[in-house]
Amino acid sequence: MRVYNFSAGPAMLPLPALERAQAELTDWQGSGMSVMEVSHRGKAFIACAAHAEESLRELLSIPSDYRVLFLQGGATAQFAAIPMNLTAPGAKVAYIKTGQWSGKAIAAAKAQAVSVETVADESASGYTTVPAADQYVVPADAAYLHYTPNETIGGVEFNYVPEAGGSPIVADMSSTILSQPIDVSRFGVIYAGAQKNMGPAGLAVVIVRDDLLGRARPTTPAVMDFTQMAASGSMLNTPPTFSIYLLGLILDWIKQEGGLAEMAARNQAKSEALYSAIDSSSFYSNPVVLDARSRLNVPFTLADPSLDGEFLAGGEAAGLTNLKGHRSVGGMRASMYNAMPLAGTKALIDYMEAFARGR
Amino acid sequence: MRVYNFSAGPAMLPLPALERAQAELTDWQGSGMSVMEVSHRGKAFIACAAHAEESLRELLSIPSDYRVLFLQGGATAQFAAIPMNLTAPGAKVAYIKTGQWSGKAIAAAKAQAVSVETVADESASGYTTVPAADQYVVPADAAYLHYTPNETIGGVEFNYVPEAGGSPIVADMSSTILSQPIDVSRFGVIYAGAQKNMGPAGLAVVIVRDDLLGRARPTTPAVMDFTQMAASGSMLNTPPTFSIYLLGLILDWIKQEGGLAEMAARNQAKSEALYSAIDSSSFYSNPVVLDARSRLNVPFTLADPSLDGEFLAGGEAAGLTNLKGHRSVGGMRASMYNAMPLAGTKALIDYMEAFARGR
Repeated sequence: MRVYNFSAGPAMLPLPALERAQAELTDWQGSGMSVMEVSHRGKAFIACAAHAEESLRELLSIPSDYRVLFLQGGATAQFAAIPMNLTAPGAKVAYIKTGQWSGKAIAAAKAQAVSVETVADESASGYTTVPAADQYVVPADAAYLHYTPNETIGGVEFNYVPEAGGSPIVADMSSTILSQPIDVSRFGVIYAGAQKNMGPAGLAVVIVRDDLLGRARPTTPAVMDFTQMAASGSMLNTPPTFSIYLLGLILDWIKQEGGLAEMAARNQAKSEALYSAIDSSSFYSNPVVLDARSRLNVPFTLADPSLDGEFLAGGEAAGLTNLKGHRSVGGMRASMYNAMPLAGTKALIDYMEAFARGR
Repeated sequence: MRVYNFSAGPAMLPLPALERAQAELTDWQGSGMSVMEVSHRGKAFIACAAHAEESLRELLSIPSDYRVLFLQGGATAQFAAIPMNLTAPGAKVAYIKTGQWSGKAIAAAKAQAVSVETVADESASGYTTVPAADQYVVPADAAYLHYTPNETIGGVEFNYVPEAGGSPIVADMSSTILSQPIDVSRFGVIYAGAQKNMGPAGLAVVIVRDDLLGRARPTTPAVMDFTQMAASGSMLNTPPTFSIYLLGLILDWIKQEGGLAEMAARNQAKSEALYSAIDSSSFYSNPVVLDARSRLNVPFTLADPSLDGEFLAGGEAAGLTNLKGHRSVGGMRASMYNAMPLAGTKALIDYMEAFARGR
């Protein structure tokens, strides 16, 4: 019944979390109400949100001098919120450009009247590379360095955390959060839309170091103001309660499965298997340089693009969905976040091999 | 099993919509995926969002020169978005202050460097009144008049639409939308958080007249920019897909039940029954003047506040939940949106009468 869903986001979610949500959708914790219907200021929901935050802190080993915020508007809202919260107009900020998402973050920063220095720009490679650590220098007076650890469209991923001198590092981890252990203390701000590895669309998680609070511009909308949202426990306004609840269920599932080390091993195994199948074939290819290949989003093209439609239709029929590549890149893309089992990747590889065999 | 939930929001939702969502939570439309897992750019979800918009247009008779936007951040984000979208810094705007929510809207506008003229302020009555139409004048150069048709905390509601001369009227309809038919053409912008009458928290609906687009300040975050969101069909970023889906199911339910005229009749019957019970009792009282009483939120106090705890505990035991009044007002509050059946109101009245009888 369930299919292997390779969508880049909203993406496949762990079935046990969905089934739990389904079982209690009209009667949560014996309350006679859906979790969607309870007050966000009631004890039950406050405990639910606290549980989600505690699980996130445990899984990511978030230090005590970082706040966890549950916001709305996805990563796109954060593109504007970052300069609004961390700079005054005219400030200098540094960005690394590795694809469309970092490009959008740069455009949004420019709209906030900051001076953007793009310290590295991989457009010359068609966004098939990430810059080496020694290829760029962050200005000493940059308010922050922003980068996108993984670009879902190009399928490129940093395999290291940049150095930024004394400037805090801001990372859009929408597509990598919870995919492997990270050292949060290397970052000033981590933000992520939920709809890849954390739950339904409509929730954004921000992890911000305490010393970066208190700097928001006065015109920052309250719901985007890290300081106000931290002070109110993310309940300055009504939070997206169902999304936070589902995040908690998904974090429970990750813990039961073995935590982030286990997620990292699985994501490594899946992507290695798929890249190996692509590289050993003359029918499929991936354009990304080896050390920048994404573990989460694997774009690939067919030798004969006129077969794309047939490939996609056959995949659908075989229960392999959402394999169409982004319109700007073409071809195919297999996104494989935590909820995609190795069996799904293997089913895709089997299908790819069978499809190529007939040509 | 299900209780009568009198929460002001997140609030009770129609059980048929919840049960439909429950039934298809892991396999939506035979896709083998949850609606939460499908791409927002796929045909199935685009049709789902279009259906929600069409139903909203049908139920509210929205004229064709109005755009419907599905945004995030609740009404609180709109408190900032309204001046950002409709004014330049320094512009004059008019607000009517009838309670905490309009007060918050005013504070958020001031943070956007507009000149706020509060044309009416009901604080002197303890927010138990709304101003009569002849008690205020909107300056001719006001960029808009903002008001809050219903204040959920004080339980006051306008029974008329203000006149604003040539200025567009902006209304925060979070607690009244879909509770009765309205004439959308009287308004420049209508906005509403979903979590009272439209679905789970995390979705905000904005209905904006075409001629008010194109005025956003350049620093407006893209996700709050009416013009950009209208141009992208509310898909500039990933929308809160599950919330939009559930909105569609709730709108289906409203249509099946008879539409907004029927909702209005039911809401009238519920609130009349409860006010009548309060007014005919010496044990309960409501402080709001008669012509400003809310149909949706009915605050009331017990003659002896030391019995509040016992009243609430007994109510919980009888399946009547979330009756505690807002901390700023005290006492009780019964919020009764569309999903609250008349039987729920009657059960509350029966409980109130039995509780008072024993004292």
